[in-house]
Parts: sequence; structure tokens; C-alpha cells
Amino acid sequence: MLLTIIYIIAITAEAMTGALSAGRRSMDWFGVILIAFVTALGGGSVRDVLLGHYPLSWVKHPEYLVITTFAALFTIVIATWMKHLRKIFLLLDALGLIAFTIIGCQVAIDTGHGFVVASVAGILTGVCGGILRDILCNDVPLVFRRELYASISFVAVVFYWLCSTYANLALETTVLLTLIFGFTLRVIAIYFGLEMPKFIYKDDDESSASSKDEH
Amino acid sequence: MLLTIIYIIAITAEAMTGALSAGRRSMDWFGVILIAFVTALGGGSVRDVLLGHYPLSWVKHPEYLVITTFAALFTIVIATWMKHLRKIFLLLDALGLIAFTIIGCQVAIDTGHGFVVASVAGILTGVCGGILRDILCNDVPLVFRRELYASISFVAVVFYWLCSTYANLALETTVLLTLIFGFTLRVIAIYFGLEMPKFIYKDDDESSASSKDEH
Amino acid sequence: MLLTIIYIIAITAEAMTGALSAGRRSMDWFGVILIAFVTALGGGSVRDVLLGHYPLSWVKHPEYLVITTFAALFTIVIATWMKHLRKIFLLLDALGLIAFTIIGCQVAIDTGHGFVVASVAGILTGVCGGILRDILCNDVPLVFRRELYASISFVAVVFYWLCSTYANLALETTVLLTLIFGFTLRVIAIYFGLEMPKFIYKDDDESSASSKDEH
Repeated sequence: MLLTIIYIIAITAEAMTGALSAGRRSMDWFGVILIAFVTALGGGSVRDVLLGHYPLSWVKHPEYLVITTFAALFTIVIATWMKHLRKIFLLLDALGLIAFTIIGCQVAIDTGHGFVVASVAGILTGVCGGILRDILCNDVPLVFRRELYASISFVAVVFYWLCSTYANLALETTVLLTLIFGFTLRVIAIYFGLEMPKFIYKDDDESSASSKDEH
Repeated sequence: MLLTIIYIIAITAEAMTGALSAGRRSMDWFGVILIAFVTALGGGSVRDVLLGHYPLSWVKHPEYLVITTFAALFTIVIATWMKHLRKIFLLLDALGLIAFTIIGCQVAIDTGHGFVVASVAGILTGVCGGILRDILCNDVPLVFRRELYASISFVAVVFYWLCSTYANLALETTVLLTLIFGFTLRVIAIYFGLEMPKFIYKDDDESSASSKDEH
Repeated sequence: MLLTIIYIIAITAEAMTGALSAGRRSMDWFGVILIAFVTALGGGSVRDVLLGHYPLSWVKHPEYLVITTFAALFTIVIATWMKHLRKIFLLLDALGLIAFTIIGCQVAIDTGHGFVVASVAGILTGVCGGILRDILCNDVPLVFRRELYASISFVAVVFYWLCSTYANLALETTVLLTLIFGFTLRVIAIYFGLEMPKFIYKDDDESSASSKDEH
């Protein structure tokens, strides 16, 4: 129940960030609506398609599509004020990341998968919407180039897994604890600008580029 | 039956536009064949995967793959004449857009979905092929930056839905009416250069970009 | 059995080439792990999703995810030596291409499909990982712009199909023969720099671009 409320807040927030990205590329209103939809519901859709978990959430609950559509149109209306809401958005997005992660993880557990698949499902749900948005807007996905994001999703999965497997806690307690834990981590990461170490590889040698790039 | 004939014309036309896009990127023949396949059959495949509607059309009818392959090779042969066929292609493509939309919409109806999911299925079938083509050719998808296109797909869905739900018409009549209606709209949109309003959003503020881009 | 060993070598090699691509884009460690995973297991996942062949291989065998993760981290550690291992990688990748192709083809045959679908399944398994990697790294997929690659996958499918349908050979013999045949072809293609003919299409005419690009 709590998770549903947070989920709806999260898809609204994600849809609005998607709409802003579409606006940066000067897309028309239909493009804005589509990118909002993909950003908000794409992560869960990728997870469900990969796990064969049908029907997808927005097919079962078409009202989610209505929510993301209104969120996109609302973003167009209030675009000029969006700059001032930046911090609120960052917090909503952090909440959304953890909520998406928990939901993805729980779907994998409910369908009988173990830790490895559950963590992939959790992370995919958390980050794939943003990756699809960046691909559609023709950017290199930013998820893996900024402050800790996917890694917090992973840590939240581990925390959630430990709580639900070993700690014998009720589902609601586990969800709430993971939300607080992951949200706090993300806020700390943003505040201090924490980043994962980067892997920087250069090979200017032409034949090398040719040999490694082509499969 | 009528719809099948139009569908085959449509996938041929779409495959040829895909082949031209691949040619603009100087791809080799295999790339041309793949992009043609994805442009023609990608929209329906995305819809079927999202709805869990198996087998996909080209798995059930492998002859569609043969058609798109020949269309791609034929495009390579007649490329120098393609410029003069531009207007015919625009019309075939308009026909294809409406045919794809109707088919996508009907698949959703047949599998028991309501208006919201049917309209998403219709629009995805109509526009996803072109979006996948543009992603593979590393462009920002053009669907949402030119004259009315996805929105005509949506209007066709509404028209089709109203006809089939409220007007008590036979399926063939509904299909034919929607084809004529949507095709006319698209031709009008091209002729007058009608466009959706665009959402243009700029935030040059660096910290803002950093905060909003990363999920 | 032989195929399983070669498959594991292949996903390791592919994961490492994916990790190098991510490194060229200066991604963080999580991005490197994700791109490695997508490069190694994306082709098979696309095939299984399109054929409705669940569960996906990495869902059934989560240890594959562990392998690609370690391959990615290992690549970060030995990156400075990678330049000297270039030729070994090319050979491992050639082996992987043929192994992926055979596996994809066999999955399609096992699920009752004919030659056309089997060849698409084989080629997709062989080349889609690299295509997804290039999309995530925001490149035009290189598969279709370098030496013979996808076409060798296709020739291997034809060879495999002929052996298993007409030659009455045991499965192991067919696999081994196809591996040797395809691997040799690929090595010849690399050595002599053989390429498919390219389709180069230019239309500088603005209205033409506008008319053909938008669906």
C-alpha cells in the first residue's frame, strides 16, 4: 500500500524528468508524452519482458499511462518553474529509484528467482527507464557517468535481501527500512558528489579499434 | 483480406525507407537488410513482446522476412531512381502508418484490452519501426520532430475505436473507413506542413543539468 | 558439452570487449559491468524474447552473470595489457560469433521453427550483443560497417542447416564442423580485410530528407 503510493509519486516524478529531456531536444508534444512514458514505465517493462512476467504493469493498470501522460503535459505547462523545483525533484527521484528497485526485486522473488536474478531485476527496474530515455534522446546514458546511482540500487537490493531472508521481518517493515536506508545513501551521494571509480580506456591505435569494435 | 494486402504493401514500403536510411549511413548489404527488417517489422514486434502476444508475426509468417529482404536488395538496385519516387513513397508510407495502427489496435482488442492499451498498441505498431531505425542509425528519432505523424496514428485509433464500439459497423467497413480517414488526414498534414506544438526547454545552468539528467 | 565450454569462453571474451567499449566512454565500474553483461548475453536475450523462449539463459543460469561481472572487473585490472592481447581476442571473438550462431540456430530448431526463422535467430544471437553495446555507447553499430561478420554468421547457419538436415551427421559432429568452417571463414575475412559491398545513398535535397525520414 505504502509502496503503491510511493510508486505513483515515483512514476510521476520520472515522467516529468523524461518530459524535460524531450524538451531539451525540442520534441513535439507527442514525443514528450512518449519519452515520459518510457522513462517512468520502461524499467519495469524491460524487467517484465526479460523475466516473462506478463501482463506488464501498465497493461494491467492502464491508469499509469494516464498518469504519465498528464505528468508530461503538466511539465510543459510549468516548465518555466521547473528550475526552482530542482531539489524536490532530486529527492523524489531518489525515492523513486529505491521504490523501483524494491518492486523489481520483489517481482523476481515472487516468481521464484534467487539473489543474482533478483538484484539484476531490481537494478534494471531502477535504471532502465533513464537509459531508454537517454537512448531515445540520443545521449550516452548518464546513469553510469554521474554520482552513485546504479550502485545504490544494488546496495538497496543487498539490504532488502538480507532483511527479508535473514531478519525475519514483516514485508512492510523490510520495505520501509530499505526505503529509508537507500534514500539516505542517495542523498549522501548527491550532497558529497560521491562517484564510482571510472574505467578510462584509450586505444588510439587504428588497427586496434578496428579489431575490437566489430562484433 | 484487404488489410493483409495493404499490410504487405506497407512493410515493403517501410523496408525500402529503412534501406535508404542505412544507405545514408553507408552500411553494408547485411546492415541494409537488417535495418529494412527492423523498420518494417519492428513496430509489430515491440507491440507483441510488450503484450506477450506470441508468436510474433514474422515468426508465424517467415515470408514477411523474405519480402523485407527482397525490398532491401531491390532498393539498392533502384537507389538512383528513388528520388523521383519520393511522393509515391510518402503516400505508401501514409497508408502503412494507418494500416499498422489498425492492426496494432485490433491485436489489443482481440486480446481483451481496453481503449488506453489499444491506443498504445496502435501507436507503437505505427511508429516504433521508424524509431528503432533511427536509433540503429544513431539519430534522434524523427517521428516526433516533423509533421503530424504519431498524432494521426492516435486520431485513427480514436476513430477506429468509436466506429467499432459504438457504430455497430462490420469489421471490413470500420477498417476501410479508418484507412480513408487517417490517410486523408496524413496527406493534409504533409501538404500543409502541419506540426504538433513543440516543447522547447533550456537549462544552461550546469548544476541543474547535472541534477536532472541522472536517473 | 563442447558447445558449453566454447559458450563460456565466448561470453567471457564478449564481456571483455564490452568492458573495453565502456572504458572508451569513461563509464564508471557499474556501467562497465552492465555493458559487459549486455554485450555477452544481450544477443541471446533478444532472440529468446522474440521467440518467446523463456526463461532466458542468464535467468536459468545466473552463474553467467557472475562470469560476465568478473570478466568486466578483470578487464579493468588488466586494461593496460589488453593492447597486446588484441589478436587472441579477435580469435576468441570469432569463436564466439560461430558458437552464438549455432546456439541461436539450435534454439530455433528445437522450438520447431524453419530455416528462415532459424537463420534470423542465429544471426541475432551472434550480432545483437555488439549492436546493443554500440547503441548504449551511442555509436552507429559497427557490425555492418567492417569486415565480413554478420554474413559469416549467415553462412554458418546455412552450413549448419545443410549438415543437420541433409547430411545425417550426429549433433556433435555438425557443431564441430560448423565451428571449424565458420571460424576459418572469419579468420580469412580478417586476414584479407574482406568486406561486404556497401550501399551508399545520398540525398542532399532537403525536402526529400524531410519526406523520407519521418516514419
